Parts: sequence; structure tokens; C-alpha cells
Amino acid sequence: MKTSQIKKAIEWRMLIETLLGEGKYADVVLQGGYVINVITREIYAADVAILGQRILLVGDASKLIGPKTMIENVQGKFISPGFIDSHMHFESAMLTVTEFSKLSIPTGTTTLVADPHEIGNVLGVVGMKAMIEEAKTLPNHVLFTVPCLTPDVPGLETAGYDVTSKDMEELLNDPYVQGIGEIQGFANVRPVFEHTPEVLDDQLTSVAYAKSIGKTVEGNCPGLYNEDLAAHIISGGGHVSCHETTEKEEMVEKLRYGITVFMREGSSQRNMAECIRAITEEGLDSRNAVLVSDDMVPDDLIKYGHMNDIVRRTIAQGVDPVEAIQMATINPATHFGFEDVGALLPGRYADIAIISDLEQMRVDAVYLRGKKVAEHGELVIDIPSYTYPDTVKNSIKRKPIKVEDLYIRASGHRARVRAIEVIPDQNLTGALEFDMSVSNGIIQPDVSRDVLPIYMIERHGRSGKIGKTFVHGMRIKEGAMAESVAHDTHNIIVTGTNYEDMVLAVNRVIAMGGGLAMIKEGKVIGDLPLRVGGLISDELTGKELSEKIAELTQLAETELGCTLHAPFMHLSFLSLITSPKWKITDYGLIEVDQFKVIPTLI
Amino acid sequence: MKTSQIKKAIEWRMLIETLLGEGKYADVVLQGGYVINVITREIYAADVAILGQRILLVGDASKLIGPKTMIENVQGKFISPGFIDSHMHFESAMLTVTEFSKLSIPTGTTTLVADPHEIGNVLGVVGMKAMIEEAKTLPNHVLFTVPCLTPDVPGLETAGYDVTSKDMEELLNDPYVQGIGEIQGFANVRPVFEHTPEVLDDQLTSVAYAKSIGKTVEGNCPGLYNEDLAAHIISGGGHVSCHETTEKEEMVEKLRYGITVFMREGSSQRNMAECIRAITEEGLDSRNAVLVSDDMVPDDLIKYGHMNDIVRRTIAQGVDPVEAIQMATINPATHFGFEDVGALLPGRYADIAIISDLEQMRVDAVYLRGKKVAEHGELVIDIPSYTYPDTVKNSIKRKPIKVEDLYIRASGHRARVRAIEVIPDQNLTGALEFDMSVSNGIIQPDVSRDVLPIYMIERHGRSGKIGKTFVHGMRIKEGAMAESVAHDTHNIIVTGTNYEDMVLAVNRVIAMGGGLAMIKEGKVIGDLPLRVGGLISDELTGKELSEKIAELTQLAETELGCTLHAPFMHLSFLSLITSPKWKITDYGLIEVDQFKVIPTLI
Repeated sequence: MKTSQIKKAIEWRMLIETLLGEGKYADVVLQGGYVINVITREIYAADVAILGQRILLVGDASKLIGPKTMIENVQGKFISPGFIDSHMHFESAMLTVTEFSKLSIPTGTTTLVADPHEIGNVLGVVGMKAMIEEAKTLPNHVLFTVPCLTPDVPGLETAGYDVTSKDMEELLNDPYVQGIGEIQGFANVRPVFEHTPEVLDDQLTSVAYAKSIGKTVEGNCPGLYNEDLAAHIISGGGHVSCHETTEKEEMVEKLRYGITVFMREGSSQRNMAECIRAITEEGLDSRNAVLVSDDMVPDDLIKYGHMNDIVRRTIAQGVDPVEAIQMATINPATHFGFEDVGALLPGRYADIAIISDLEQMRVDAVYLRGKKVAEHGELVIDIPSYTYPDTVKNSIKRKPIKVEDLYIRASGHRARVRAIEVIPDQNLTGALEFDMSVSNGIIQPDVSRDVLPIYMIERHGRSGKIGKTFVHGMRIKEGAMAESVAHDTHNIIVTGTNYEDMVLAVNRVIAMGGGLAMIKEGKVIGDLPLRVGGLISDELTGKELSEKIAELTQLAETELGCTLHAPFMHLSFLSLITSPKWKITDYGLIEVDQFKVIPTLI
Repeated sequence: MKTSQIKKAIEWRMLIETLLGEGKYADVVLQGGYVINVITREIYAADVAILGQRILLVGDASKLIGPKTMIENVQGKFISPGFIDSHMHFESAMLTVTEFSKLSIPTGTTTLVADPHEIGNVLGVVGMKAMIEEAKTLPNHVLFTVPCLTPDVPGLETAGYDVTSKDMEELLNDPYVQGIGEIQGFANVRPVFEHTPEVLDDQLTSVAYAKSIGKTVEGNCPGLYNEDLAAHIISGGGHVSCHETTEKEEMVEKLRYGITVFMREGSSQRNMAECIRAITEEGLDSRNAVLVSDDMVPDDLIKYGHMNDIVRRTIAQGVDPVEAIQMATINPATHFGFEDVGALLPGRYADIAIISDLEQMRVDAVYLRGKKVAEHGELVIDIPSYTYPDTVKNSIKRKPIKVEDLYIRASGHRARVRAIEVIPDQNLTGALEFDMSVSNGIIQPDVSRDVLPIYMIERHGRSGKIGKTFVHGMRIKEGAMAESVAHDTHNIIVTGTNYEDMVLAVNRVIAMGGGLAMIKEGKVIGDLPLRVGGLISDELTGKELSEKIAELTQLAETELGCTLHAPFMHLSFLSLITSPKWKITDYGLIEVDQFKVIPTLI
């Protein structure tokens, strides 16, 4: 028995007392609006009556209006359930849960299902629990789907903590934990099955435990079909989601297989316009189609909005507005088994977005748990900043490095090396080879051909390894850049045009306790401390952080000559070994498809 | 942790081993058919591969066919998920779970959600658990939604056992118990709220407990609107069903309120054709529309089928066949949170109906848990008969009655009395008054005007009461009929043209340990022992019972002159005090709307 259940029973009793008793009335009634019914897919005129934090009824509320009832005139406006973002990472915004929520709530998003995968890789259970504790202080609904495996690929990379089935009892029994997050390991189903079957056994253990206590499991299966897709679904206990579906045909296949397709439409990856064709062109039942952001940068939240903007873009693809809203309300609520949010129904939380223009999804006001919390895009309640405890700071457990640590040595005057090829605006990479010059036994960076050394420096105080290889396509002409954001294990990744600046960049990140740093000619030209796990700032607001990142991106171009869009984001994904083709970890150069380390020198 | 969960994890592992491993193959592959996809609402050509009791994949199974794989040719046929009946009572068929299942499985119904409300009223937890134990012996999926309150109206009728929240821990933790069944008490929401608020508190306690362990709650709210409907929904924890919705407008309202509408379409009450208009005419989203039988008599199961016949009738109302099948598969699966049945998806049970004619819903073969169990309407597996333990027999705890016990006394020569009016083919009744002749201080039955005495004789060994009043419209010309089936408390109900025959009828029911009896001129002219709780026969097959009831109905007409269709069923509902207007219980004549006993003599 959860305490929340007992509390709910008491609330039910009071709701019934008000509905049926003499002289009892609603606290708030929204009058004159058009209700968006996401169950029947209708819009019609109706009142919404609220008591405390819950909806009393949606219909004719005239008998529920008493002398103290606050009547809100929403004449001619649309009354929608608050939106749900079913798959997102706070770490992508580098913001605390609090600062993200402050930007997200005024756009009508009232429920966030977050995957604390990054902080989980760095700090394990302690890190995730710290984030969960923060969520408990907030007025919006923030739930977590926690990883059951860190690092994603044991034996090829080093995380700060190895999450396994042993941690599931502690994590999953927290009432703010919705279930297990994207099962990454088995996204590469065949290699895991063939190389590390013990990972599969451990995952099934976690999944079975989650199911046994009524929790959910999210999947992630880009590019899987037929047997591989079936194996992935079963590894997640039979009912999973996928948030990396990118093709219409893949969308059709996933829906046919019963997967809830989380159409990703965030700041970086946008797949909805392609995926939605399975519905607009093929007429498939859309009940298992859901909209998610995955990764949002604060700048986009400020400029365009959050789920309201994603719904707007979906409507622009020819989807009926109520059907599009279903994809951000009742469809995810059904997927997760939410009975308190996702629809305007008696007994549910009064989480409401008041919309003045349906096609444009302009959100005029937002209610959370029956209280008006935002109006005209601004919060009208005070949400204090949140400072994390020291237990999740100072996560860089590495002494400063020396230039000798970075040398890539070879004999003779020339060396043939492998290099990761950056593909602009993609997580996946290519594979290239280059002849490099060697001086004093050390391979020299080649700025003219854009072939630079790149390193992943373990920083969790565990392996102590430094993975070394080369990269082509970072477009840096001078200096170096380093960061402690490097998916998914978040060791320190660094590249640059000379060994000295790279050493300084890494040591600057270490000195800050995590963050981003740019060095040129031995000087720090820009940095951003991310003290929470080396991933998140708890010192800046969303707006400040957004401005800081814009400034750093500008400096990368003017000072380092780097013309890549979002260079720090590109750098951070060069270590993501759950997507092809070559990547770097603290173990060295990884051939992702082969599931193994390959030498840089040929 | 349930043992079933552990077993499932092991099965998952073996499924993955077969999907991805070398030299591992499916046990069975269905080839050449058209799959009915109830997620996407499509029909397309695909194989279905099965391992053990579960589906491996639905798609191209060519790589899963090995030397020992059994290939079933289903060329040109439709492969549907097995059907779910989401609300039914075995007691209505007077059959054991086993005999009902033997008739139901060959029609393609693979999952039954039963409400053991009747045996619960008679024998409480012991009776329900006996039925649950029987279900555990069967190959089909039988789950139970148990009442949280017996009798339905405490203080106005006497059940054999008072089920309350105190019993919920024991019942709800059984893995075969899906949740709480139709919440009857709060269907009459205002009178309960006003007269017996303690019933509401107890119900909320049960509901909150059920939710806390992940169980579901069913509602029942005919004729409720706005505040009353909202109160009912909240009393069921926010997400309930209703299986007594009868009007299109009511269907629209219920769907708008988020209720899963169980459109009832069984042997007696048929509401689908009216309710479905909310979908066919108004175009509402049908995701919360579900088909159920509620009450099925064995004769209909034999002649017409079960859920396949209900789906057929729904298609005949202009609903797309796949959408109609959704209402008996994925829609109820979603409502209940079933993850193992309701769709043909990897990891789910291979519960399959092979259909040769979609419009007619002709079921050629049925698979349950991967095994073919029926072909051409006949079982191809052996399901042995089930005999109940003595603990649920001999449930009549009453000594034989005497004629004096039944006399309705009055002074003078005439008396004005109230009489329940039978309305043919309806559960609800009217209210009439008559002048009756009195002889020797006893009111005389009046056969010519069809005004007969009627009694409810408490038989649980508790109150010992005999409720007495009159009934008009039973159309009995001679003799008497009695039965221990009398909703919902199942005391012995009797009516007839003379006191002597009524006494004999009651005593015959007592002597049989429960059942139906007809007496004429002091002789038993027909009877049917129902020894399990006085409700169910564990001695007859469905066919035998069906023939027996036909014989009794025929005898009622030829011997007693009763021309009512189904006279025993009519009689059994004259005590159902959850539907209007006047009814009889062991307390006497009940004014249902007023929630009180009223005197028969005026």
C-alpha cells in the first residue's frame, strides 16, 4: 500500500461528498469553453468543475457553483488535458528538473517522463535518486524510467557505476519511478545475444521484476525487423516503446508489432513528419502513436515551446487536431497505465491547458492540480531554484593529466591510422583511414586535412584508461575543446589541434568538477561548469544557460574556426557506441557492429 | 513476485533463444492466412510462428521453420486473436466453469472475465474460491472480478455471507482474480450516499486496496448522468466499466466520461444495436467500446455461438469487421491491462481463432496457448467434468416450511394489497394495487386476475425471515413454482395458485439442496437440482442442462398454464432490488427508489 493511494481514497470521498451532498460546491469552474475530449475524439461546449487538485466533472456544472466558487471565463477557448512528454532527458538540456519545468510548464506540458540515463551512467543509483528527490519538490508531474543497465556495453566502456538487476528493487519501488527506461543493450540485439548473453539474462531479470510490481518497460529498437524486432519486444516483457523510429515503413512495422511508437520531435532529431505518414497515408489506427521530445535545448523551449509545438507541427502534417492531442495525452497515458493524468475526467488531476488557437497550439493558461500556474507564457507561481547536494557534485575522480598521457606514438616518419568520420547532424559516424606524419615518435595532428587526435579519458576513478584515436570532420583550426558530457558513460572527451591545448582543456574540465572548456594558445577562451554529475548546471536558469551555450558556439567559430553546428553536441556523441559505425571509448576505437576494440594504427 | 512472473521470464529467454539462435525453430507455424491486426486495424498476409504456448512472431516465419516444425496450412483464412468476454456470470448458465468453457472455447472465446457475484452472495469467499479453483484446472484463461459488497443492499435483504473490504486482501491477492467486479451498491448512488454512507466508505476502502496492488475495478451505472455519473466513476477509483448502458445518448455520455462501455449482448439483454450508434452515427473513437455477454444460456452457446456471434451481430450493424473484433480483443485487453492476450504479438499467448468467413464469424479452429483445442465447432482435447467439493453444496440452511408460514393474514372479507407487476422480458417491475378476498383471516390467491402470493424465504440460516407480498403477471393457472435462484441473495422464491403447492415447491427445493421445482396438485411435475450453492449443476453437461430447461419451460406451459417466456428467469429477477420499482426480499415488499420496506396491506 502506497501512502499516495490512501490519500487518494480520502480525496475520492471528498469529491463524492461535493458531487452529491447538500451545500457543497466546486472550488473552481471553467465556464464557456470547448472541451477537447481525447477519449471520444470530440470537441464540444462543457464546463470543467474542480475541487482541490482534481476534476469533479466535465459537463453541466451549474449545480456545483456556490458562493465561494471561483468562476473562470474561458469563453470561446479550448480546454485540453495538459500534455505529457513521454520520453525526455533533463541532461540534454543541461538543466535541473526545476529549471526545465519552469520553461516547460507555461507551454502546457504538465507531465514529464524522464529517463535519467546520463546521470545514471555517471553516478548510478545515487545520481538518479538525487534527481528523483528534486522532482518531488515540483508542482508538475515528473516520473522516471530508469536504466536497468549501465554502461550500455559492459566490457567496451567504463561508467561511473554499473547499474544491473541488483539495483532494481531499490529504484523501482520509488513511487516516482514509472518503470525501466529505454533498454539500450538489447537494441543491438544480435551482438548482445552472441557476445554477452549474461547481459540478456540480467535484463530479463530486471524486466520480470519491474512487471511483477506493476511497473512498465520502455524499448528502443531502431532498424530492427522481424525476428530481431520480436526478440527486442520479448526482452522488454512484451509491451515496449521505440523512440528512434525514422521511416514510414518502420513505423508501420513497429505499430503492427504492438510497439508504442514514440515519434521523436525534439531539438535535434525530428522524425514525426516521416513517421506520421503511416497514419495520414495508410490510415492505421493511431492509438499507439505518441509524440515525445527526447532531447530539448532550452533555447527551443523558450522560442517555440515544448509539446504544444510538437502537436502544432503534427497538425501541420494533416492530422486532426484532437487526434494529434491524443498523441500527447491519452495515448501515452494508456501506454503507461496513468489513471490520474492524460484526460479531463472525473477524479483525475485538473491538469489543463487553455488554448486560444488550436492550429497554432497557442497556450493561454495552464492549470496544474487545479491551480492556475501559468498565464500568457509566464509562470504565475513561484518555483524556487534547486541546489543539488554535494553527493552528486565533484564527480570527476581523476587527477590532472600530462601531455605525455595523450601522445599517440608510432615509429618511423609516417603512420597509417584509422579515424572516426563526423557526419554533420547525425549520431552515426563513418570510418576513414589516413597517412599521418610522425615526429619524435609521436603522430602529429593534421589541421589541413582535418585529422585530429581524439581521446576519451576515464574520469570515474575506475579503469583509469585513456582511449585514443583520430577524428575527421570536427573542423577545428586552432586550440582544443573538451567536455565531461560524452554519451553514454560521460568520461572526458577531448579533441584539438595540439597536445598542449588538449591537456589544458581536459584539466580545465577536471578543475571545474565537470563541464565544457575551450582552449586556444594555452588560454581558456570559454567554459561552462556543469557541476551536477559533470552534466547539469544547478547555477544557471534556462535562459542563462541558453545564452551561455550560444556564446560558446559563437566562440568555437570565431576563436577555434569550428563551423560545425553545435560542436559540443557533436563531440559528445562521438562516444555513443550504441549507434554505428566507429566510436571512441576509454577502451579505444570501437567497431560498433563488431562489438570490439580495433587498433588505431594499421 | 508471482511465480507466474518467474515462469514467464524463463519462457521469454527461450523465445529469444529460438528467434536468434542457430538451429532453433518454431513448434508450429500457421501459413497462408491473413492476420487480423487489432492494433493497426488492418488485415494482411502473414505467418504466425509459435513456440510452446506463446507467439514467436507474426510476419515472415521462413527462418523459423525447422525439420520438426508443424506447418498448419490456413490458406485464405483469417487469423484472429482469440476473443475475450469481459463480463459474464457462469451462474446465469447454471453451468460449472468447465461445462461453460467446453461450449465457449470452440466458438473462439479464449478468455473469460467472470463475476462470481451470485455464488459470492450465497457462500461468500468460500464459494468464490471454489469457483476460482475450478478455473485453475482449465486450458482457457478464466479470470474473476469479485464483488466487494454482498448483499448489494445491506439492511434490506439477507445474503449467505457479507462480503466487505475485510475480505479483499484474501480475494484480490489470488492471481486468478483480476479485480473488483461490478460495483452494485453505488449504482444507486444517491440512496446509498444518503442512507448508508458507511457502504460508500467500505467500498472506497476496497477500491483503494485493489488499486494499490494493481488490480482493476468494474462499475455499473445504468441511467446515471452528470454529478451522479461522476460520483460513480470516482467511487470506482476513476476508471470503470458499465455493462448496462442501453441508449445511444447514454453511450455517448459514458464514453465522454471515460467509461469503458461493455455493450451487453447476451441471451437476455441486447443493447449493442442501440449503443453502437454512438460510433456508427456519431463517429466517436471506439477504443473504449467493448462487447460482453453478461448472461448466456447454454442453448444459445450451442445454437449461435458466443463472442463470435456477438461480433457477427456488430458487423451486421455496419461496423468494420476488424473494428468489431477490436471490441472483443484489444479494447478489453487495454481496459484490464492484459499483456498476454488480446492481440497476436510476440510474447503473448498463442490464443487464436481461425475464421473462414469474416462477415459470418465462422470459426474453423481454435488455438489456446499454442495448441489446437477445437476444430469445426468441436473440442479436440479432453476436458474432464468437474465435481465441486461438499463445502459448496448443501447450502440450503432451512428446515422444511409449513403452510402456516406462508399465510398472508387480514381481517374482514376484503383486503387492499400491493402487488409487484411483472413486465415481460424486463428486470424492472411495475407497482399495482388490488382488492382481494379474505377467507378465514387469510388472503386468497386470485387466479382469474392473476394476482398470486409471492415469498422470499431466507435459506442461509441467518435471518430466518419470510418476505411476503403479491405478484401480478406470472400467468400461472395451476400449482406453484419455487427456486433457489433469486437475485441477488438467492434465497428461495416461490409463487403459485395455492398455499399447499407452494409449500411443497419450497420443500422440494430444500430437499434437493437447491434448484428449481414445479408442483401441481400436490405432486412434483418437474425439477432441476442445482447443488452447487443452489445455483449451478455439476452433474449435467451444457447440452443436458439446456434440454432440461427446455423441458421445464414446456411443462410450465402445459401443466401450470404459464405462457411467460422463461418463467423461472422472470421469477428469479423479482427479488433484484438494484433495479426498479417494487421487488421482494426476505424483508418483504421493497420500494426500490425509496430504499425501504413497504407494507403489502394498505
